[in-house]
This record gives sequence, structure tokens and C-alpha cells, in this order.
Amino acid sequence: MTKDLTQDSLEPVAGNGLLHRRMFLTHGAAAGAALLTAGAASAAPLDVPPSMKTPGVPPSAYGERSAHESKVVRIPNGAAPSAGTGGSRTPIESLEGIITPSSLHFERHHNGIPDLDPETHQVLIHGLVERPLLFSIEALSRYPLVSRIQFLECSGNSAGNNAADAPQQSAGGIHGLVSCSDWTGVPLAILLEEAGVKPEGKWLLAEGADAAGMSRSVPMAKAMDDAILALYQNGERLRPSNGYPVRLFLPGFEGNMNVKWLRRIKVTAEPTMTKDETSKYSDLGLDGRSKLFTFPMEVKSVITSPSGGQKMKGPGLYQVSGLAWSGFGKIRRVDVSADGGKSWAEAALSEPVLSKALVRFRMPWRWGGAPSTLMSRAVDETGAVQPTRAAMIGARGANYRYHYNAIQSWNVTPAGEIGNVYV
Amino acid sequence: MTKDLTQDSLEPVAGNGLLHRRMFLTHGAAAGAALLTAGAASAAPLDVPPSMKTPGVPPSAYGERSAHESKVVRIPNGAAPSAGTGGSRTPIESLEGIITPSSLHFERHHNGIPDLDPETHQVLIHGLVERPLLFSIEALSRYPLVSRIQFLECSGNSAGNNAADAPQQSAGGIHGLVSCSDWTGVPLAILLEEAGVKPEGKWLLAEGADAAGMSRSVPMAKAMDDAILALYQNGERLRPSNGYPVRLFLPGFEGNMNVKWLRRIKVTAEPTMTKDETSKYSDLGLDGRSKLFTFPMEVKSVITSPSGGQKMKGPGLYQVSGLAWSGFGKIRRVDVSADGGKSWAEAALSEPVLSKALVRFRMPWRWGGAPSTLMSRAVDETGAVQPTRAAMIGARGANYRYHYNAIQSWNVTPAGEIGNVYV
Repeated sequence: MTKDLTQDSLEPVAGNGLLHRRMFLTHGAAAGAALLTAGAASAAPLDVPPSMKTPGVPPSAYGERSAHESKVVRIPNGAAPSAGTGGSRTPIESLEGIITPSSLHFERHHNGIPDLDPETHQVLIHGLVERPLLFSIEALSRYPLVSRIQFLECSGNSAGNNAADAPQQSAGGIHGLVSCSDWTGVPLAILLEEAGVKPEGKWLLAEGADAAGMSRSVPMAKAMDDAILALYQNGERLRPSNGYPVRLFLPGFEGNMNVKWLRRIKVTAEPTMTKDETSKYSDLGLDGRSKLFTFPMEVKSVITSPSGGQKMKGPGLYQVSGLAWSGFGKIRRVDVSADGGKSWAEAALSEPVLSKALVRFRMPWRWGGAPSTLMSRAVDETGAVQPTRAAMIGARGANYRYHYNAIQSWNVTPAGEIGNVYV
Repeated sequence: MTKDLTQDSLEPVAGNGLLHRRMFLTHGAAAGAALLTAGAASAAPLDVPPSMKTPGVPPSAYGERSAHESKVVRIPNGAAPSAGTGGSRTPIESLEGIITPSSLHFERHHNGIPDLDPETHQVLIHGLVERPLLFSIEALSRYPLVSRIQFLECSGNSAGNNAADAPQQSAGGIHGLVSCSDWTGVPLAILLEEAGVKPEGKWLLAEGADAAGMSRSVPMAKAMDDAILALYQNGERLRPSNGYPVRLFLPGFEGNMNVKWLRRIKVTAEPTMTKDETSKYSDLGLDGRSKLFTFPMEVKSVITSPSGGQKMKGPGLYQVSGLAWSGFGKIRRVDVSADGGKSWAEAALSEPVLSKALVRFRMPWRWGGAPSTLMSRAVDETGAVQPTRAAMIGARGANYRYHYNAIQSWNVTPAGEIGNVYV
């Protein structure tokens, strides 16, 4: 039943030890290569452990994770000027698969998390509509629902890599303002059509019930396309830090537009030019002018293992694992380089590959112990290719703060230490 | 921008008010039909709520759900003879989408949940192999990983419906021993091929490190197909109640075989005939003989909304929503009836429709207030059709306890009360 190790499966497909992704389909090759990691067993069977001699704890109403995992926590988003205006990042280097546990979903709040009562909270649709409507959460929950597994990314994600010197942080510390959930909610189009949008209604204003009154303008085309008022996240009702009991969810659009704790949608003829889209979340270009309304998050990827701050456990076979996503649709392919971009090979994408969702990519790599630079480069279904840092900053200038989507490079020293490096 | 209500979209497609699933694609129709649920807004804007006047709470390391949701908990699995031998069910009637939050994943323990230290726990592969191998969790974590969104179902799920009188419980109380997660782990085939299975090795024994020494025999073909040693669940490491730090995961096979807290895999020539596959988890047939090794969970579905114990809020448009799954592959279609099975119409399946995963189906229904019986019937990609209760019990007899997969019927009274009924 054992397959032979085939020469093909262990033959490099790109420089510095990258192996063909088909190795994952050839169990024998993986087993042979992986022999480095397991130990031969002693002839004696394992001792019966104490856990088999004493009954364990009973079932519970709402489970918790193991205390042994308590070090896996969200990463504070730097020092905040006041208590509620900070954020936290998903420790993507400690996670696998594509679903982010809700307890580790990234956070970005502008004046803290309000405690809203679902019995009394309401959402108003008004402005340029025939019939202003007021919805309780219970009323919203009776509308037709749709579910989709999709990512959410803060437009400020990865901005640390704008700095002149590469920040020495973990993958999550740099890129952890992205998460992916199974979102369920009411299509906004249904509610807007019930209210009756007047012909001059081309935009809408979405406003949160938080103490920042977080407000953004959304083009009507997006509202009528795939926007939902999200009520559920990963099966259960939204978490407070994600807008409980209702948030706007705009697949692929920058995080802050997905207004949490939604209380009001006003249909307007023009964008409202709120503080949150003029003093913030605009992008200063090379010509000294700010770009407004840069909505979709561009194609991007990051290797999460091995990644910054981790340490290689000696030469041998490794699985390079990472995440890719695009606000424009599906990921078409991800290429990986182990020689700083001189050569590339295609990684395996784990099913399901969904539109505007995180995708898990994996690549076998035999590290020989030489200094190495690992990179990943995603391509989405529109053909957009993740740029190099030099190309991106060259095109945008150094003051363009948001929407950083350049290739991340991790440097591996002969001692196996891994750090952030600009290539 | 408003679409007309089309006659087509609101025309019944089956008896007692079932509407075509395309209604979900026709926003206007849904809006018109849904007018019953929202209230017209007053002319005055909403008052500014207290939440906008006081800063909220800051970000946290590991988030919790809203206190307003504390009533959504797992349902105890009846009285247990001792503390650790019970279980708990997922409250599927309170959830949406397809991912089950790990805190609400069903539980079934045979002598409680052990507390295993990932630094010292090991997995032994021995028996009919060339090279016995002993793996630490760290070593396992370096092997190639695969991720898949798949369901897990206890073979005793839904067994309450074997009773002569239909149990008056919620959807979760009857069918909540099923959950769905994003699982990540090491293909078992890689480890077995590294150990070198001898030609006579046709089965394996999997044993847990719990105080029940839970043990099951698994055919080699399944081990070499899609079995994994799961290390991650919904992004983070397994929960203790799901086998932390490592469990066997056999996609589509009955839950108890997916041995939690895995400590040992022994390759054998024949099944071991453990207590857990002879005194339990066998099925007594009409001829008085027990069937052993009834592995895959058959095609099944259940309507979760509206469902047992809930109450209709008056005549009007409803979205019927439910879950379907099959241990044999993908769900091909789900039909819904509102007249006790006299007529059926096809429900909409929410993407993604994945192999051996929960699938969310939805169907528009205009309830006129008459007594009604709601049913769902799933068909999988092998062509297997979910049977009626009468047909299933007729074929198996009344003593066949496990693998209950008959159609669930919910009775709706003119007062809108919903109960479990055998049709």
C-alpha cells in the first residue's frame, strides 16, 4: 500500500528548495521527506497516562478553549490616544484553515464598543425614499437571509510596512487586521426596494450607534449588489466587537465602511463627506492631493508559517502556509519564492476557493540551511497581481497610508531566525 | 432602481404557499412580500441613543459574545448515569450559516474531558508496521496540513424520533448532535506510509487517552483516503471537548469513530472488536442480529426555522431555513413541503455546497394561517434520498437505534404553535 518516493515529487520546481505542490498528493514522498520530524518508537507500548485513570470533566453549556492555548491572543494595535479608539489584530501566525474564530477576529473601534440591547435597537432607512422604514432586530431577522464566507480587512492593514525600516513584528502584528467569517444577513437591496429609492438617490450614508457616530458614504450600486445587514457571524449572532446586533457588511470593501452597530441608512444624492472619509480613510498621492472613496481591498497574500519572529527547527522539509485574498473576487493563483523573487513556483490552494474570502495556500519547501528570503505573490480572477513594495511605493508615493498590499518578504538566517525584510 | 413585483416570483410552486426559490433573487418581490414585517418610520429622526454619548469598552485579547445572547447554549443530552458520560447538543434552531461556533459544537463523552498537555502528549503508530513511530504534537504540526469544512454527526443523533410518540423538543434537542467546522490536520496516510504498513495490515485501532479508553476499528481504505489527525478547528487549536490536542477525523463517518484525545493507532489484520463497537454503536435489525461497522452517516436534512417550540408571528411571508448533509458526499438538492408531503418544491442551496459538509437551504413560504406540516427531504450526489420515517422504520425495525435519518415533520397549528409530528 506504500507508494514509492518518486523523483518527480521531490524535484525542485524553483530556486532554493521549493518542491512541486503535487507532493501533497503523493503521500509516500511526503512521508519520506517528513521522516526528519518523527521519532522511532521504543519497543514498549506507551504507559497508560493519568488521564485514563480518572474521569474527566463533564459537558458544558458554552465551551472554552484549553488553558494551554491562552497565549494565543489578539495583538494590541499600538498605543491608543484614549481607551476606546484602538484596535487589535488577529494572530494569523497561530491559526490554520480560513475561518477566524470570532474571539480572535480583528478589532478597530473609534470610540469603544457600545452595549446595545437587541430588544430596543432599531435601524432607520430614510432620506430619498418613498417610505421611511424603521426596523427592529426581530423584524430584520424575519427577512430572507443570505450566508457567505468572506473576509473583512481594515484599510490600514499592513501599513507598518510603509515605514523606512522593516518593522520586526509577527505576521499578525503586521498583517492581522484581516479576518474571515461565515456572515449571514439580510440583503440591503430588499430593504431599500421596500423603502422605495427615489431616482435621485445615488448614495447612502451609513451611521453607527457608537460614541464616534462612525459614518461612511456608500455608492448605491454596491448597496444593490452584495451588501447585507449582517446579523450572524460564524453561526451565532454578531459579537459586540463586530457590531452586535447589526452591522453593514460590504464584501471586499475596506473594513471601516462595514459600519458596526448600524442605526441609520440615509439615501442621498451625493456622498455626505463625513469626518471618517475626509479627515481619515483617504489616501495622499504623489501630487499632494488626497484620493477619496478607495473602496475595494486589493489582491494580497502573506506567508503565515514560517513567518516573522518564528524560528526554523533545523534544515529539512517544511510546509510553507499562508493566506491570500482579494476584494475584487476569487484568488486565481499564488506563487511562492524562496530566493527573494528570483524564481517562483505555484502553491496549492486549499478548497474552498471562494469570492472575497481568505484562501489557504501551501507549498513544500526543503530548507538546506542557507540564508533565504520567502515571498508570496497572489493573482486574482481579474488578473490583478500583487505588486512588489518598490513598485507599489513608486506608483503611490510614501504618504499613501492605506491599502498597502505589497508582497511580504521574510528573511531566514542560517540560524533559522525569521524576520521582516524589504526586498 | 426598484424592480417590479413579478407575478412569477410570488406564484406558488407547491401546495400551501411555497414560493419559488428564485424569489430570493428578485429583490422587489421579497420587499413587497416582506412589507408585513417592518414599521413605517415616524417623521422625526431617531433620538440619539445613550450609546452615542458615552465611550464604549476597549478592545480585548480574546473576545466574548454579548450578554444578551447568554440564553443560546448547548442542550444537555438527557440525564447521564455519571458526570462524564453525557453529551450536549448544538442549538441549531438559534444558528445560521453552516459554521458551528466551537463553543456550541455538540459533545458526546464516554468518561469526561481529559486535560492533556500538548508538551507531553504523544501519538504512537504501531502494530503491523515496519517502523513504529511516536509523534509529539510539535512534530505532527510540522507535517503537511490539509483543511476542509466538514460536518461531524453522532450516530445517535435524532434517535429520539425512534420513540412511539414524537418528542416535543426543539430542532437542536432532537437533531443537535451534528455540527460543522473548518478542520485542519495531517493526512493519516502520510503517517501510515512513513511507518510502512505491512501487507496484512487491513484495519487499524484508534484509541483515545480519556478515562473511557474510547476505541474504534477503522478500515485501512478510509485511513488512506481522507482521514486526518486534526489539530485545528475553526482556525484555532482543537477545543478540549473536541479532542485537544489531537483527534482522528474521518469525514462522513459516525462521530464516535473520530476518536478524541488520540494516543494510539495500531495497525491490525482484523477489526479489534472493542467494547465501543460491540456493546455499543451496533444496530439491531429485524432478524434479531446486530449490524456492526455501519460507518457513514446517511443523507439527512432538518428545517431549523420555523421549528419545534418556536411560534409563528401571524400569517405572512416566512423564510424556511434548514441544514442538509450526507456522509457520502455533496448534497444535490433539498425539497420542501408545506402540506405534509403531498407536494414538494426545490429549495435554494446557499454556496458553498461542499462534500460532507452542512449545507444551508432556504425556501420562501407564505403562511395563510391554516394547519400546516413542514418537511424537508435531501438528496445527495449518489442519488440517495432521505426516507420517510415509516419507510425507514419499516425497513430497519424499531430496535435499530443509530443512524436515524428520516424526514423531520413540523406541525404548525392555526395559533402558530410548532411541534414535532410523525407523518
